[in-house]
Formats: sequence, structure tokens, C-alpha cells
Amino acid sequence: MTRIGILGATGYTALELIELLLRHPGAEITALTTRQEGEPHVASVHPRLAGRLDLKLENLDTADLAARADCVFSCLPHAASAEAIVPLLEAGVRCVDFSADYRLNSPEIYAKWYDHQHPDAERLGHVVYGLPELFREQIREAALVANPGCYPTSAILALAPLLKTGLIRREGIIVDSKSGVSGGGRTPKLNFHYPECNENFSAYGVGKHRHMPEIDQYLSQAADGPVEVIFTPHLVPMDRGILSTAYSVPTGNATEADLKAALREFYAGEPFVRVVDNPPGTKDVTRTNNCHIAVRVVRGRVITLSAIDNLIKGASGAAVQNFNLMFGHPETTGLL
Amino acid sequence: MTRIGILGATGYTALELIELLLRHPGAEITALTTRQEGEPHVASVHPRLAGRLDLKLENLDTADLAARADCVFSCLPHAASAEAIVPLLEAGVRCVDFSADYRLNSPEIYAKWYDHQHPDAERLGHVVYGLPELFREQIREAALVANPGCYPTSAILALAPLLKTGLIRREGIIVDSKSGVSGGGRTPKLNFHYPECNENFSAYGVGKHRHMPEIDQYLSQAADGPVEVIFTPHLVPMDRGILSTAYSVPTGNATEADLKAALREFYAGEPFVRVVDNPPGTKDVTRTNNCHIAVRVVRGRVITLSAIDNLIKGASGAAVQNFNLMFGHPETTGLL
Amino acid sequence: MTRIGILGATGYTALELIELLLRHPGAEITALTTRQEGEPHVASVHPRLAGRLDLKLENLDTADLAARADCVFSCLPHAASAEAIVPLLEAGVRCVDFSADYRLNSPEIYAKWYDHQHPDAERLGHVVYGLPELFREQIREAALVANPGCYPTSAILALAPLLKTGLIRREGIIVDSKSGVSGGGRTPKLNFHYPECNENFSAYGVGKHRHMPEIDQYLSQAADGPVEVIFTPHLVPMDRGILSTAYSVPTGNATEADLKAALREFYAGEPFVRVVDNPPGTKDVTRTNNCHIAVRVVRGRVITLSAIDNLIKGASGAAVQNFNLMFGHPETTGLL
Amino acid sequence: MTRIGILGATGYTALELIELLLRHPGAEITALTTRQEGEPHVASVHPRLAGRLDLKLENLDTADLAARADCVFSCLPHAASAEAIVPLLEAGVRCVDFSADYRLNSPEIYAKWYDHQHPDAERLGHVVYGLPELFREQIREAALVANPGCYPTSAILALAPLLKTGLIRREGIIVDSKSGVSGGGRTPKLNFHYPECNENFSAYGVGKHRHMPEIDQYLSQAADGPVEVIFTPHLVPMDRGILSTAYSVPTGNATEADLKAALREFYAGEPFVRVVDNPPGTKDVTRTNNCHIAVRVVRGRVITLSAIDNLIKGASGAAVQNFNLMFGHPETTGLL
Repeated sequence: MTRIGILGATGYTALELIELLLRHPGAEITALTTRQEGEPHVASVHPRLAGRLDLKLENLDTADLAARADCVFSCLPHAASAEAIVPLLEAGVRCVDFSADYRLNSPEIYAKWYDHQHPDAERLGHVVYGLPELFREQIREAALVANPGCYPTSAILALAPLLKTGLIRREGIIVDSKSGVSGGGRTPKLNFHYPECNENFSAYGVGKHRHMPEIDQYLSQAADGPVEVIFTPHLVPMDRGILSTAYSVPTGNATEADLKAALREFYAGEPFVRVVDNPPGTKDVTRTNNCHIAVRVVRGRVITLSAIDNLIKGASGAAVQNFNLMFGHPETTGLL
Repeated sequence: MTRIGILGATGYTALELIELLLRHPGAEITALTTRQEGEPHVASVHPRLAGRLDLKLENLDTADLAARADCVFSCLPHAASAEAIVPLLEAGVRCVDFSADYRLNSPEIYAKWYDHQHPDAERLGHVVYGLPELFREQIREAALVANPGCYPTSAILALAPLLKTGLIRREGIIVDSKSGVSGGGRTPKLNFHYPECNENFSAYGVGKHRHMPEIDQYLSQAADGPVEVIFTPHLVPMDRGILSTAYSVPTGNATEADLKAALREFYAGEPFVRVVDNPPGTKDVTRTNNCHIAVRVVRGRVITLSAIDNLIKGASGAAVQNFNLMFGHPETTGLL
Repeated sequence: MTRIGILGATGYTALELIELLLRHPGAEITALTTRQEGEPHVASVHPRLAGRLDLKLENLDTADLAARADCVFSCLPHAASAEAIVPLLEAGVRCVDFSADYRLNSPEIYAKWYDHQHPDAERLGHVVYGLPELFREQIREAALVANPGCYPTSAILALAPLLKTGLIRREGIIVDSKSGVSGGGRTPKLNFHYPECNENFSAYGVGKHRHMPEIDQYLSQAADGPVEVIFTPHLVPMDRGILSTAYSVPTGNATEADLKAALREFYAGEPFVRVVDNPPGTKDVTRTNNCHIAVRVVRGRVITLSAIDNLIKGASGAAVQNFNLMFGHPETTGLL
Repeated sequence: MTRIGILGATGYTALELIELLLRHPGAEITALTTRQEGEPHVASVHPRLAGRLDLKLENLDTADLAARADCVFSCLPHAASAEAIVPLLEAGVRCVDFSADYRLNSPEIYAKWYDHQHPDAERLGHVVYGLPELFREQIREAALVANPGCYPTSAILALAPLLKTGLIRREGIIVDSKSGVSGGGRTPKLNFHYPECNENFSAYGVGKHRHMPEIDQYLSQAADGPVEVIFTPHLVPMDRGILSTAYSVPTGNATEADLKAALREFYAGEPFVRVVDNPPGTKDVTRTNNCHIAVRVVRGRVITLSAIDNLIKGASGAAVQNFNLMFGHPETTGLL
């Protein structure tokens, strides 16, 4: 039984993680933290957990956490997350970081997109990115895993195989993504206020979203050459789910069938990625750790459509999958 | 052309009011106020108004407002509203108050439910309630109109005629109401955060909602005797609309047909209230100033179902209807 | 490993049941039926199941089914369900019936509300109602369990304990219920067409809904005397969830605390029912087999608020709970 | 007063048209048709119209219609629409066609995309496309106007000015569009069933949507050379609204400011198109005849974002705008 601590347990990804772990026979949640006052019971923060988990949210220091947990999941915001993780690693606690702190390899790129110097810059470039479909073996051994961003997961799973196999060009990739509102977190803000985003659809952060360099980095690795995507996120009036519609240019005369076959071969044996025939809806994968991918060729352009649940495959499910790999549980435990 | 000022123009009722008045041939919006800094253009606060209204939101004092407006609509919160209205009335400006400040007759009941002493207590009991279906003639002459609450409008329109005609008893009335989220205003709060109220349905303020004494007061007037309703509001995951399902006890052997006929007679000639055969949906009346009412008798209990748009007949449409009566415009101007 | 067959596997309750059973270590789905042509793969009917269940939907006769399944869940419509179940029972297959066919004790009441003679009338009155909180022991032994209706589950769980303990009167009970749209099934109809029910809220079947006699029957049993509820269902623009707001008259001077204590005592040890302090939202229980109940006393009337997921505790989760009892699995298996 | 007939008055565009025309001082609705049996009252088909329009839906022949209406709006499906319009034109009735029948110039392209031979092929190429921003003068004189498709309106308004001014290239244009569900019409189908499309987001008709050749044709006219767009429509869980995110390649070194200035110049004086600074949300324009357009340059690619209400600027509002031009009413009558 692996003992689990969760940092910043008031938000949506933490709730999702708790619900997944409650079903996991090899994990026991032993510590939840918050910076809020008063040590609230977890069920007063998350009414869904009434009668299901009897823990308070506490303001714990590193020593307390290290004494109580073998694995810590950090749901803290960027910067705060790295600051909490560094001493935990030093205390021998293995960590999964939900924040963006350890996803980028370059401190300069991090500083440019996140507007501050990285508090643990020397570690950048030495942390595995928690996408098991690409980095399974490194994850098994890792003390620290950088859990991928939700949009990058949807984009990279669709495009990396086509870049690796050379079926599409590195240039001119457009990722037009659409996400449910839970992706914006649980802090009340006008743009996530119900009557503002209900019955509304809009783009945001056009050309400025922090997931853009993250997609670039891992697609560049896959392509073995620089990739710079045009990334446009949109907000969909629904709780959860991401669909990424990506446009790319084929290198040769590959047909739709060739592209589908390449994706199928790449994902053969993967427990959570399915290459499907019809354009997937986000509802096909909500509340699962699955990613559904379809591909079309239209007027000489390759269109991939990939759907995930932003809170599961895009966050907490991926984290459990990484945890399973790190601690020797079967990879799908708690996720089927 | 009546010149219009709107106090507290950043919220949903103000936006709705502006859109209604832009279609009104006899009204011109000349002043908008806010307590926010920086005198923002109205289109930066309400992007829907881009190119449709070229005004800034200003921090105006009474003299400025009185010089610019013949009629002021106050969308300020309670207490702040009365404080702004008193000097305007003294300056000869006629006012429609969207807040609850002038709806209750008793300063004691006001203080109990609104948790503070009324800043203009002596005026209570002398202000007309802006429900034209009950108080049309007094509205015409009023310097100040207390615009009704959204839930009370739906409940009173359904029940007052049955109490006035003695067809239902004063005792044991239950009003089970359901409202869209815009009724909660535009200030971000956790309970109106999109992922909290989307795909969710809950009651709130059970037995404690401030509209309960307001419903009591006007149903008591209609019944000519004390009425104390059980009022339970609920939050529906939609932008706008209220449905009130009210349960009451018939006094005699009135059939469904009798009750419907009594309602039809009461509302004969009313431009905005229709007694319909089938249970109304809120969508039958959204974006209109209409109220649809149906009645059923089930196992000896009378069930009325009344639907309005909370932002129109429950707020800004009613305000325009009152304005029309006050300033001699045809009552339906701008509302059809 | 219990082998499972599911009749009528194209709808929402069947999908939910399949997803629950895929996580159940003691159950194996071995047969799915449909009356549709062509033996479609389950993933072409339910894209969520791609790669998760490799079965076709078949048009199987009783002998085939009896050879393949130890337990059959019938998701067929009423009448068709009883007709399919009778021969299965004769062949020794234990059954859980999602339809209303075996919920009512009286063939006359059944005929009145369901508009046809019951095809297996003599069995009525001898089938256990699958609400473990009331009938756990009988369920264990049953060959056939009548899985409760969704609205009745929410109403009976809130009211039966208060009737059993004599804290509320049998007369004058009002159940004002609100349900997500999945309760209406998967067959396209105008009233469930997206633009008709989105941003809409309405009552339907006022005084005529078939769940009314079902609620009557089990509350009458609990009260040991006739109960006739006023039942008003409403449609909420959301996928799933039921909230029932029930109004009843206390028999004595029981306070809110007394009523809550009585509910807590009644449900002590129950794995899926929690008596909570704050009014529950449906989202507190969606995707769980839980029921959350709160109680208030307002102006001398008892108000209970009970929330369930209509597809889980109101259908497929209850069915798995019943299955666990029938086949000797721990009651919560697959449901936590 | 222009007398109006509406063919196929049971759907959403017809309802929207009726509501707009009820506010139009120069139009009187005198005839509504349906192929349904029984001559239902319009309020039984559209409960919103109770007390607002007292007309039946009738099965009228050409002579009846021609006697009653000066202008006919056809909301019939393609093919049926042309068949109804031809004799009306011969009878001297001016028509606005909501269907796609007269939008394409080539009978061959029509036959390819609509799967049947055009019933009035010789008229193709001689009918004005009802987009006043491009074809205002021809619309004034037209006996027949082809009302534009909803997606094409959003795409053409954003891209035509940039093609006309030569700021973007003809090649490589991608239009990634997202629409509310009302665009799918009012006939119940599984993919528009509430629980199927609520909380869901998906692409559909990828590379096969019939609006693709319509966009091609009018962008080709604007570019004075062949344009073939990649068009991907998506379904958003909301009632109404379209956002089109279009990607194109600049011809030179035009900056974001240059592109915005070009759009502003093109639309100077247009009553319904605004070039805005921030990415528009569909809610900024719902229930209006407005189109909001923003432009960005990201990594050397031009991104335009254009929002309309699919039922108003994308259908019925455009039709009223065309009607105003055709019959000499001020262009904005009934639309502000």
C-alpha cells in the first residue's frame, strides 16, 4: 500500500485524483494540504467526498509530509509547486507535479512564458514528461514526473506519431483546441462565471497560451527538428473534455488509410489510446483515461481529431498512470 | 424623448435594461454610473453594446445626474440604492428601484431580513410596488416605483388572482421556485462558478430567502388577510428563466376549469400575462416580458405553474413597463 | 465469476450498467441483446466502449441467453420486459428488471397507469422491490428483483424513515422532483431535442406521472397506512441527477435536529446514503451510487431534499447493488 | 405595410423570423405554411407566440399565397424550396430563400454536393447572394434573394475583405467553425438528442459539409481567383451562435494593425459588422444581427475570429435585412 499526499487539495484536479485513488487498491491517501485557514474537513471542501474520505486539509511542512507519504502529487500553481517539491525530493519522497514547473527544458523559455525565474532551474531538462505513450520507461525510474498539460496531451498524442514516422511536415502545424471550463480551475473569475461562459463560445489567449511552448518542445523531440505550432485554445460551455483539431501538411502521398494505420501501429498495445474511425466527441472519453483519435485528409491537408477528458487523461488519470508505473502497480490499476 | 440614467450599470439587469431601451423610441440613455475606477466605455464592460451605445460609465453625483436624466433606474444593491435615490427624488427625478429597498412596508421586517436599518425608513409603506397587473394606476402617478423581485413576480402573478377571488386558502401555500443563474448577479462567486453550477441542481436559502417576506406581503394584500408562504428557491443550470410551482388548497369545489377561467378573467386585457393550457417552459417566455401561467388540480391540491424571464418580466422589462406608465408612453412600448 | 446478460443494451441505463460491471471483479458481461437489425458491435452503439468491451448486440432467444448468463438485467420497456423475463425465470436465470413491470403490487393499478393488462399479473405482489435500504434481506434470496424507478428512489429514501418513525403525517405529502434529461431515455423526441430542453425548465406529466403510484405504494408500506402523494416532476437542462424537494407535515414538535437524527439513525451503516447538513446539489452525487439527504423545518413544514444520480442510484447502480446482494458479492463491489 | 408569407413555419429559423417581423413596423405576417396535417395554430407549434400572433399554419397553394403575400420567405428544405419558389416568382411574388437552392452558381457543383439535380438549374448564376455587405445594390432590385448559409456568413465576412485587398493568399485557408445546436434544425435526431450533445464537443462532416463549396464560391469572387478552403464544422453544446476561427497566410508584411485597419475600412458605415479588439464570444452577438470580427497574427499566420448568431445574422436577421433592402425599408428596421 503506497501512502499518498496531495498538495493543494481544494481544486478540481485534486478532487478527481482523490476519487480515482479511492478506487485504487494499492494506494492510501494519508495527507491533504491547503494554504486555507482552519483545517477544513475534505468533505466540507468537496461535498462529493462525504462519507468516502475522512481527512482534514492541513497546512503541513515537508517533514510532516515526508513522514506520512511515499508519493506526493502536487496540485499547486506553478512556482509554488517547484518550491514545495524540491525539499520533498530531498527527503526521498517521489513526486508527480501537476503544474508546468518541470515540463519545459529551458529556464529561459520558462521565464519568458511564466513571467518569473524558475526556482529550481538546474533541474530543468532532467525531469521526465509524464506521457507514458512516449516516455514509459523513464517514468518507471523517476523520482519526479512532470505531469503533462491537458492541451499538450491531446495535441501530442495525435501528432507525435505522424511526426516520428515522417508522414507530416514539421512546418505549418495548426492546433485548434477546445476545452471545457474545468480546465480554468476552481477560483471564481468573471470569465468562468456561469452566465458569462454558458451559451458562449470564444477563443482566448490566442498565440499567448503557455501550453504552446510545451507542445512545441515535445513535437520537436518527436520530429527530431524544430516545430512551432500555431495554437488557439477555445472555451466550450461544458464541464470537461478537450477536442483538438490539428491541421498539418503531409510529406508525401500518404492516404487517410496510411495515416490511420501508422497511428494504429504506434498505439498497438497502448491501454488508453484508441484510433477510431469516426470523429470522436469529447463525451466518448469523459470520465475515462482514454484518448480517441481520428484522422482525415481533406484537400491535401491532414486533419487529426483527438479527444480526452482534461481532468483525467489531461491531468489526474495521467498522474495515476504515472504513479502506477513509478510504484510498480499494473499500469491500468484504478483507471478502467 | 425621456432622458434616462442608470445607476450601477455593470450588471446583468442593467445590460438588459439598456438593450430594451435602445429599442424604445421615447427613451434616450444619457448617463450610466459605476463605482468602478477609470470611467470605462460601456462596450468594454458589455461587449454586446459595441457600436450600439457610445457612453462611458461615470461616477456621477446627484446634481450631475439630475441635470442629465428625467428618470433614473437604480441597479444598485439594497441600502446603497435607497441612499442614492433619496437625493434624486428631492431633486425631482423620478426613479425605478431594482433593489429590494422599497418593496417591504415595514422597517422592522426589512431590518430583520436585510440585516441593517433602512436608511429611509419613513418612506416605507408609501412606495408603489411596480407590478402593473396589480397596481397600474398608482404606478402612473408615482415619483418612485419599487420594481418587484423576480421570484415574487412569478409567485404573485400566479396566486394573487386565486386569493383575491377566494378560490384558494390563505394557509398552506408552498412556492417551489427554480431560477436560472443570472438571478445571482454578475459578481464572481464559487456557487456561480461555471463548473460548480453547470450540470448541477440544488436548493438554496431554504426558508431564509429575502423574497419570502415580499411574497407574503403582496399575497396578504391580495387575500386581505395574513399569508405566510413556504418558499424554496432552486438554482437551474441555465442563464435565465424562473418557473414557480406553487401548491395551494382550494376553498371549495372549484375545478381546474373554474380556476383557469378565474385567471383568464383576471388577466383579460393584460398585454403580458397569458393563461395557457399546457405547463409552460421557461423557454416559452425567455427574452420576452411575458408571464405564462397554467393551473392543475391534483388530488385536491391546486398546482399553479408560472414562467417568466427573470431578467425581463422579473426585472428590466417590468422596469420599462413601469417607466412607460410613469411617463405616458403606451405600456407595451419597447417590450413587444 | 457471474455471467451477465443485458436485454435492450442500446440505451443509457444499459451503457451505465456496462461501465459499472466492467469494473466489477466478480462479473463478466457475456450477452447483450437488441431488437435492432444487423448485430452491431457494442462500440458502434456506444463509442465510449471502444476497446473496452468486445461484444456484439444480438437478437437472442431465451435458450441462448439462459445458456450464456447466470443473471440477466432487463433494460427493455415495460410489458416487453415482463414478457422476456417470464421464460428466463422458468429457465432458472435470476433477473433484475429495470422496467416498471414488477414494481406495483396490483394488476389493476398497473393496468390503469400503464394502459395495458399486465402480461404476468399473478406474480405481482410477490416480487421484491430492489431498494436495499428497505428490503435488503428479501433481495438476497430473490430470483427476480424489481429495480426501483429513479424518482421513487429519491422520494422514498427521504420520506420512508420519517413515516416509519411517525415523525411526519401520511396526509399532504408533496414531492416536487427535478430530473436531468437522460431520465427520458435515448430515443429522439421533440421534447428531448437539444434546443428544446437546453436553457429551458418545465414541469411535465403533472399529476399523471407513472412514478406516482409507485411512490404511494412504498410510502404506504412505510407508514403502515395509505399515502397519496402529490408528485410533480420537472425537466432540468442537464444530463443526469435528480433532486426531490418534499414537503410534509410533522406529527408533533420534532425539531430539525430530531428529524436529522432520526434519518441518521435509520441510515447508520448504510454504505450509500448520507444525511448531510447543507442542501445537497445533484453534482454531489453524480457518477456515484450515493444519495444525499438534508432536512429543514420551515414555518411548521418539513422539507426534505434528496439527491441521487438517476442513472446510478436511480437505475444501474442500484441494479448492481441488488446483483451483489443476490449473488453474494460484498454489497459495495464495483460501486465505490 | 408589406404582407409576408412564410413557407415551412415550424422550425427555428421561421420562429426567429416571426419574432423579428412582429417588431417590424412595415411588415405584416399574413400566411404561414406547413406540410403537417390539421392546420395547427402557430402558438401550438411555437408556444412563445401565444397571444402574439393569431394565425394558423396552412397547406396553401401558390395562388393562395400569391394573393395573400407580397414577399415570401421560404424555410423549406433544399429542392422543396426551389420547387415552391419558381411558381411564386412567376406569380410576381418576391422571395427570400433560406435553403441552399440558389446559393451556388453551378448546377454541377450543386448536384455533387446536394445529391440531386437542381429543379431550376437555369436560374443558377442569376440569383443574388443575400449578404448586403458584399451585394447590397443587387439585393435592392432582386425578385429572389438567396439567403446565405450560417457558416458561410461567418467565414466570408471575416475573409472576403482580406482577399479583396490582397492582404492574404488564396491558398491554404482553413476555416475551423463551431456552431450551436439550433443550426441542425428542429427535427429530432439522435445526434441532436439532448444527452448526446450536451456536455459534448465534436467535429462533424469533416471535409464533406455542404457549406464548403458555398464558402469557396464567394471567397473566390472576392479573391478574383480560385479559393478552396479546408472547412471543419463542430457542434457546441449551446443553442445558438457560431464562431469561425480562420487561418490564412499573409501575402506580405502586413501587421495585425494593418489587417485590422483594412477590415475597419471595409466595414466603415456597415450597421451590423464591428471589428473588435478582443476575441469575440458568440454571446457578444447572440440575439442580434451583428457580426464581431477580431484579427491576430501568430507566428506568421493570420487568424481571424468572427462571431454571429446563426439564427439571426446567419439566417432570419439577414433575411429581414434583405427584405428591408428589397422593399425600401431602412436597412436596420426591426433589427436593432
